[in-house]
Amino acid sequence: MKPTFADRINDVPRSFLREILKVAISDDVISFAGGLPNRALFPAEAVRAAASAVLGDDAGSALQYGSLEGYAPLREWIAARYRRRGVDVDAADVLVTTGSQQGLDLLGKVLLNEGDAVAIEQPGYLGAIQAFSIYRPQFAGVPLTENGADAGALQSVLESRRPRLFYTVPTFQNPSGVSYDEACRREVAEVIGASNTWLIEDDPYHELRFSGAPATSFASLAPEHTVMLGSFSKIVAPSLRVGWLVARGELMDKLVVAKQATDLHTSEVTQRIVLRYLADNDLDAHIELIRERYGAQCRAMLDALARHFPADCRYTEPQGGMFLWLTLDGVSSMALFDRAIEHGVAFVPGLPFYTGAPEENTLRLNFSCADIDTIDTGIARLAESLRALAA
Amino acid sequence: MKPTFADRINDVPRSFLREILKVAISDDVISFAGGLPNRALFPAEAVRAAASAVLGDDAGSALQYGSLEGYAPLREWIAARYRRRGVDVDAADVLVTTGSQQGLDLLGKVLLNEGDAVAIEQPGYLGAIQAFSIYRPQFAGVPLTENGADAGALQSVLESRRPRLFYTVPTFQNPSGVSYDEACRREVAEVIGASNTWLIEDDPYHELRFSGAPATSFASLAPEHTVMLGSFSKIVAPSLRVGWLVARGELMDKLVVAKQATDLHTSEVTQRIVLRYLADNDLDAHIELIRERYGAQCRAMLDALARHFPADCRYTEPQGGMFLWLTLDGVSSMALFDRAIEHGVAFVPGLPFYTGAPEENTLRLNFSCADIDTIDTGIARLAESLRALAA
Repeated sequence: MKPTFADRINDVPRSFLREILKVAISDDVISFAGGLPNRALFPAEAVRAAASAVLGDDAGSALQYGSLEGYAPLREWIAARYRRRGVDVDAADVLVTTGSQQGLDLLGKVLLNEGDAVAIEQPGYLGAIQAFSIYRPQFAGVPLTENGADAGALQSVLESRRPRLFYTVPTFQNPSGVSYDEACRREVAEVIGASNTWLIEDDPYHELRFSGAPATSFASLAPEHTVMLGSFSKIVAPSLRVGWLVARGELMDKLVVAKQATDLHTSEVTQRIVLRYLADNDLDAHIELIRERYGAQCRAMLDALARHFPADCRYTEPQGGMFLWLTLDGVSSMALFDRAIEHGVAFVPGLPFYTGAPEENTLRLNFSCADIDTIDTGIARLAESLRALAA
Repeated sequence: MKPTFADRINDVPRSFLREILKVAISDDVISFAGGLPNRALFPAEAVRAAASAVLGDDAGSALQYGSLEGYAPLREWIAARYRRRGVDVDAADVLVTTGSQQGLDLLGKVLLNEGDAVAIEQPGYLGAIQAFSIYRPQFAGVPLTENGADAGALQSVLESRRPRLFYTVPTFQNPSGVSYDEACRREVAEVIGASNTWLIEDDPYHELRFSGAPATSFASLAPEHTVMLGSFSKIVAPSLRVGWLVARGELMDKLVVAKQATDLHTSEVTQRIVLRYLADNDLDAHIELIRERYGAQCRAMLDALARHFPADCRYTEPQGGMFLWLTLDGVSSMALFDRAIEHGVAFVPGLPFYTGAPEENTLRLNFSCADIDTIDTGIARLAESLRALAA
């Protein structure tokens, strides 16, 4: 047997994070490399009670094969949550997915022919780059400014490359922490509205705002073009693998066909656990705890950067989410990484977040998991690594 | 916006079962159309206790993002279960999947270029036809005899079409209930062994044997060529969506890349619930209950067929699993379907299980869900529909 493989699988970037994190996992290393929600905030006892209730009454239905589109009352809950913030969503528009990563895979299946252009922020979310790469598109980068995607650059990409979709994380972006401001959203919606390109609004961090005011969803600004992705991973718990996708009409029909071929349906047990948790608990109060914690940790990281780092380093100042983005002055973050590990601190270099020419002097820092003292120590170590590299 | 879609999604057969079952769902209709395990046999209370334990101790880990390849102790359990029946599997060879349907999607991603040939039994498992169709292969049918795949026909397909893979459900096949006998397995293994084709041994019903003796797995007969798929759906509960795939070497490396792009990982919560259930309960005793029930129901269906049906109808006599296959004498099962619904009984016509020219006089009957009296009534109704059609 001489094994051969499909061409597509050779195009998917190896998980840089996975390789890099193998190195970084050690008790001596303070890690800002992860992308995990803080486990101390998981509502474990409430989820346990929800599981017990779901597997108590009507356990036969909870354990049987479920509905392709998702558990109907959960789809209704998700739609109602959107309506509460003024976004017009009906339960029939909601497809429950096995984490929102699966939403990306389904969109790739349904929208991308080999060689189609895909517009994506630079830097952009690595999981989306991986998911779409399976379908062999040509990526077209759209630079991110501190106020959101560069709408002029997006317009020229739309005109010259006619991408099938523009993928964006407009609120507390992974990796940068940048949020599109209202003006940027309106500009982007206008250029998208004049195109035949889908806008994929991936919005897993929306509820994790600790400062500033929410901006308008693309689903309201460009409703015909927008597909929304969401997830319970950051507000309840990631391991339940319950996310969703909001789409309409023929697109939804095609996504349902793809969903069936992909995994039949998302676990009915975990969907029912989520819904029962939501019914029996005050989600808003729980999210408030997360916001407070992440906000305090983000401020601690910004303070530590101001205190320990040279003035020629720039960094984003997120209003929510889990990440910020550091731009060094003429220093390679890959070179810094090796030094940083020696000094007992880890981060993710900017490189894997670019589909085009990378800005090699950039890096991502996660602030959701470390406590305030650890953050200060870790940032001090990072500053020391930078000095050691310069010496 | 004038939405356009990827070519591949237009190639996937619409779910015939889904459409057909919409019609069939009514309290007055006895359904032999489903493919569900019997919900009365789900170990609900034990699963509830397992969930409570998992979400009690170390809930932080159970709820956090988990390992890409699956929960290590569960992979070890799966490998040990194979070794117990003499199949050489190491925990490192096991990739946990979101149901075994996802295993099919991952194999499509990793193995199939557009236009590659895929050999598949005729009739064959509909979920596999759907999963592989996403990757736009050319299907090459291999006729199924009552002893398994026709090895001569397989050999000529291997020579003339050089398929990338041969997909088989060799034990209690869905849809036919046929099992490959030992001689057939050895012939198939020999022709596969001389080829450069993967053999996908999808084996979800293996444990559900109520008569006869187990035959040798292709993993033992053609180890270099065989990928095994398995699932807890039929022996614990389907909604947990925990299945697995057994592969080695470079193929496993590629599958892991595809898994990450597809859904990051399978729910750590449901994996841990399964393992805890397995640790705290006697799985073999539980499976024995399922075997007894399905065996009794299968015998009741065979008895009813012998009693109510004309002698020119042929049917398989399964030694396990959930299905049997009926071949009518010159009658279209699609025509019979409409009559049967009028008479209050449903089944799945053979048509959707063929990738080539269908044998339109065939149909699938499920015996896992209905009790013995209902089976007798349903088969009597089906015989009456057949007489009505002939009249």
